[in-house]
Amino acid sequence: MKNLLVAQSGGPTSAINATLCGVIERGMINTEIEKIYGAHNGILGILSEKLVVLNDIFANAEALQLLCQTPSSALGSCRVKLADWQENSSEYEKIVSIFRKYHIGYFVYIGGNDSMDTVQKLSSYCKAKNIEDIKIIGAPKTIDNDLTQTDHCPGFGSAAKYIATTFAEIYCDCSVYDIPAVTIVEVMGRDAGWLTAASALARCNGHTVPDFIYVCERAFDTKKFLEDLKKKLSEKSSVIVAVSEGLKNEYGSYIAQSMHNEQTDAFGHKILAGAGKFLEEMVRREIGCKVRSIELNIMQRCSCHIASAVDIYEARLLGSAAADRAINGFSGEMACIQRIKNMPYEMKINFVNIDKIANKVKQVPLEWITKEGNDVTKELIEYILPLIQGELPVQYQNGIPVHFKL
Amino acid sequence: MKNLLVAQSGGPTSAINATLCGVIERGMINTEIEKIYGAHNGILGILSEKLVVLNDIFANAEALQLLCQTPSSALGSCRVKLADWQENSSEYEKIVSIFRKYHIGYFVYIGGNDSMDTVQKLSSYCKAKNIEDIKIIGAPKTIDNDLTQTDHCPGFGSAAKYIATTFAEIYCDCSVYDIPAVTIVEVMGRDAGWLTAASALARCNGHTVPDFIYVCERAFDTKKFLEDLKKKLSEKSSVIVAVSEGLKNEYGSYIAQSMHNEQTDAFGHKILAGAGKFLEEMVRREIGCKVRSIELNIMQRCSCHIASAVDIYEARLLGSAAADRAINGFSGEMACIQRIKNMPYEMKINFVNIDKIANKVKQVPLEWITKEGNDVTKELIEYILPLIQGELPVQYQNGIPVHFKL
Repeated sequence: MKNLLVAQSGGPTSAINATLCGVIERGMINTEIEKIYGAHNGILGILSEKLVVLNDIFANAEALQLLCQTPSSALGSCRVKLADWQENSSEYEKIVSIFRKYHIGYFVYIGGNDSMDTVQKLSSYCKAKNIEDIKIIGAPKTIDNDLTQTDHCPGFGSAAKYIATTFAEIYCDCSVYDIPAVTIVEVMGRDAGWLTAASALARCNGHTVPDFIYVCERAFDTKKFLEDLKKKLSEKSSVIVAVSEGLKNEYGSYIAQSMHNEQTDAFGHKILAGAGKFLEEMVRREIGCKVRSIELNIMQRCSCHIASAVDIYEARLLGSAAADRAINGFSGEMACIQRIKNMPYEMKINFVNIDKIANKVKQVPLEWITKEGNDVTKELIEYILPLIQGELPVQYQNGIPVHFKL
Repeated sequence: MKNLLVAQSGGPTSAINATLCGVIERGMINTEIEKIYGAHNGILGILSEKLVVLNDIFANAEALQLLCQTPSSALGSCRVKLADWQENSSEYEKIVSIFRKYHIGYFVYIGGNDSMDTVQKLSSYCKAKNIEDIKIIGAPKTIDNDLTQTDHCPGFGSAAKYIATTFAEIYCDCSVYDIPAVTIVEVMGRDAGWLTAASALARCNGHTVPDFIYVCERAFDTKKFLEDLKKKLSEKSSVIVAVSEGLKNEYGSYIAQSMHNEQTDAFGHKILAGAGKFLEEMVRREIGCKVRSIELNIMQRCSCHIASAVDIYEARLLGSAAADRAINGFSGEMACIQRIKNMPYEMKINFVNIDKIANKVKQVPLEWITKEGNDVTKELIEYILPLIQGELPVQYQNGIPVHFKL
């Protein structure tokens, strides 16, 4: 008898709990797995032995169903990178000893780019040390959609659905007055513009929004931006623009760098505040019309009440597949989505060696950005469209969605 | 045969189109009304004769149903106050002549506080000039919930549902890391804290959020605020705070006044930017922990995909009632909601003389704010709870809600 361990790491999404659900479901149907453990706060909870047995908690379908409509990480999360084991192996030894203590034979780590780094390091340590009774598989999640090898990442579809819906609603809101006005909507994404591009899906039902899309893959040209706006304002009164949080100038510096103090988060990522606010001030100064900036902020990653059914389904499937892969004796891989075709959309799951994934970033291909650099192409819209389909039958109580709480 | 005219004015809400729907429905069932006209951009569209016949457009149930799931004003809006007719009656004469030209016998104006000023002025002009063949009735809408005489305002319930849901989701998002962090969420409301108070409804399903609520009815005490936060941070790691956009200090000045330039909107209202951002900087400086501010921005008034079914139903009913009242020969009134009881919730419609409503503001009663000034009472939660109940069967296409477009 071996036990299965699952943990969640990195930033919240609307789908990461569906992946947890998938892992638990796969664990439960295997009679050779006695206990399914969840670690609180990712790898930190393993190191500090903050483990909880999940079997009883999820012994009924309702708990699993609620889990799938609960945003963020039910087990908690962390933002921790392990040191290289070649330099300092003490944490690795500790993790393995805790795995042994709890008879953990299979470990599924759900997370984004930084979490796959942990999967890579831990599995390569086990391999180097000939530890063959611990199997480690990564399950992807990130609203940023920037993991390589997988067609797309769970969490992205729900964030994209929120963004497309919100742009359609913002269009309705901003079109009521007959006076020149610019609305700048800042979308998450430091290094990848996938989410910003998702704003284009608001056009699918006929709204002419956004008027321009500037993603962080292309150097941002202030002069061209102002020219774009002035031209559009001569044609219509309400102009709506989508911009990536991580817009950079031709020298690779964040355009809003001068606006904020140079704080960094736990990973050393720069804290960005204000591409939208920065451009708002610029438009006010240089054009002088009514201007507003909107930050979609964390709502774009936690608005699970409007999650994509396709996204939640795939996230759940990936969790099950990752657990299954570990149980079947594989290690050092990530569960990936392979797109078979678009219309009608079909996908399947495959597994890719984690070395090909960790610490790599998949950006929007430059050929999916228009030549002028102020919009995305039809191909990009067609790529995202299948991922935002379907709505969850969300359970409400007291007028608000019910969330699962551990 | 007389015609019915309807127009929308003021800021967008998720329910103002449901009221338009109600007006149209009431007009359609009356065989003595030949045409239902809609004016583009409120009173501006009347003055410039931008009128559209609505009968054919809404001759099928689907168009009306889509209208009710479309945020903002389908007819467009304006922010215009008429001059006093005693000083300058030229606009009033023009309006009456256009009414005569189009055989308008009944006019329903849907809007908030500034729009009810128009209803008041126009109906008092007609009364003074013995114009008895034009009947003018106001139908309320405002997410701010600050109109007097009516128990609450259409649009408020949907905004409150969005806010309560979003706070529950933000709670999930912000609770994943085990490090001290403050999240400050800025909610709309210059002079009334109803929407900020609605954040408390996130607690109904068991989430301990927000930890503190500061509404603009109470002078904001910076020192007390920092003390509140420090105390709470000693008890738990993630502290979430709701603040009104219009927080003022003991001298009645906006707390963020020093942060932004003193622009004013078309009504002379000060443009507020940044109670949340202002407090974020203060917490970073004075406490030094991780801190983030979130502006719910226009999403709180246009997220019709999560509208309150009760709100949309009442908004539609008020539109019908307002048109009915005008057709029955009354003028210079606003359709109001009277709450009969809370559990189970029951309401009815009544009409109140517009003089009692125009240019008055209903704030949160001070007895519904806790003594410490950092939360709201049970009574306030019980007042809002019935208004956020129920979800619309929203029609989606291409993964996003379908909106009606004129």
